[in-house]
Amino acid sequence: MNITHIEHIAIAVKSLETAIPYYENILGLKCYNIEEVADQKVRTAFFKVGQTKIELLEPTCEESTVAKFIENKGEGIHHVAFAVPDTGEALNELASKEIRLIDKAPRGGAENLMIGFAHPKATGGVLTEFCCPKHD
Amino acid sequence: MNITHIEHIAIAVKSLETAIPYYENILGLKCYNIEEVADQKVRTAFFKVGQTKIELLEPTCEESTVAKFIENKGEGIHHVAFAVPDTGEALNELASKEIRLIDKAPRGGAENLMIGFAHPKATGGVLTEFCCPKHD
Repeated sequence: MNITHIEHIAIAVKSLETAIPYYENILGLKCYNIEEVADQKVRTAFFKVGQTKIELLEPTCEESTVAKFIENKGEGIHHVAFAVPDTGEALNELASKEIRLIDKAPRGGAENLMIGFAHPKATGGVLTEFCCPKHD
Repeated sequence: MNITHIEHIAIAVKSLETAIPYYENILGLKCYNIEEVADQKVRTAFFKVGQTKIELLEPTCEESTVAKFIENKGEGIHHVAFAVPDTGEALNELASKEIRLIDKAPRGGAENLMIGFAHPKATGGVLTEFCCPKHD
C-alpha cells in the first residue's frame, strides 16, 4: 500500500446550508464545490485545507447511510479517505491481507474520484476510504 | 483564522500495541514516535501521511477522556487538529466570534505543540484542536 496523503476527511451534517457558514466565516475556508452524489444519497460540499479536503456530507433522504450515522451518533467526523495511486489495487491488497471490505471493486465518487471503502470493523472503528483520480 | 493544513487526525484506540500493526503492516505507514502525555492521560503513537499526522490515542487510566470516548462510542476518530500560526490568537479569535472553547489559553501537547480545543457543540459535533509549534 502506497498512501501519498489524506485526500479528505468527511463530516456528516444535517444541513450544508447550516454547516457551511462555520467553515467559511469561523475557520476562514472557502467552499469551492457543492455536488450531489445520487447513489450515495448525499449532497457534498468541499473545502481545501493544505493537501487535504474537508467534505461535508448531507443526507438527501432518510435511507441514506449518512442519515443513519447522524441518527445513531450525531453530526461529526464520518470517515477518512487515503489517496492511493490505484483504488482497485489498494482494495485487492487489502482483500489479500484479509481486511474486510465494503467495496470489492472501485466505484465513482464525488470530485471525479474512484473510491472504495474498507469495513470499520477491520480498521479499528475508522470508516476508511481509499481513492484515486478517475483515469480517462 | 489562517489554517495552513491539517496537522493531525487523532484516533482513539484501546491499545497502541494492538492498533499499530494495522497502520504499519496493512496501510504501510511507519510509527516514528510514541509519547505519553501525562496531563491528558494518554499514550500517543504518530505516523506521517503527507502533510498530516495520524495520532493514535490510548487511554492510560479509566478517568481519561479518551477512555470515556471509547466507552461511549467505541474506538474511532476522536478529533481533528488544524495547524495555525499561533494557537493563542486562534483561540482569541474563536472566543471573539462566540465559539465555545474547552481551552481558553494554549497548553502543551504531544510533539512539542501548543494546543487548544474548541467545544464540539460549537463546531458541528467535530472535536477540533488548533495547534502550532511551541515557540522557544
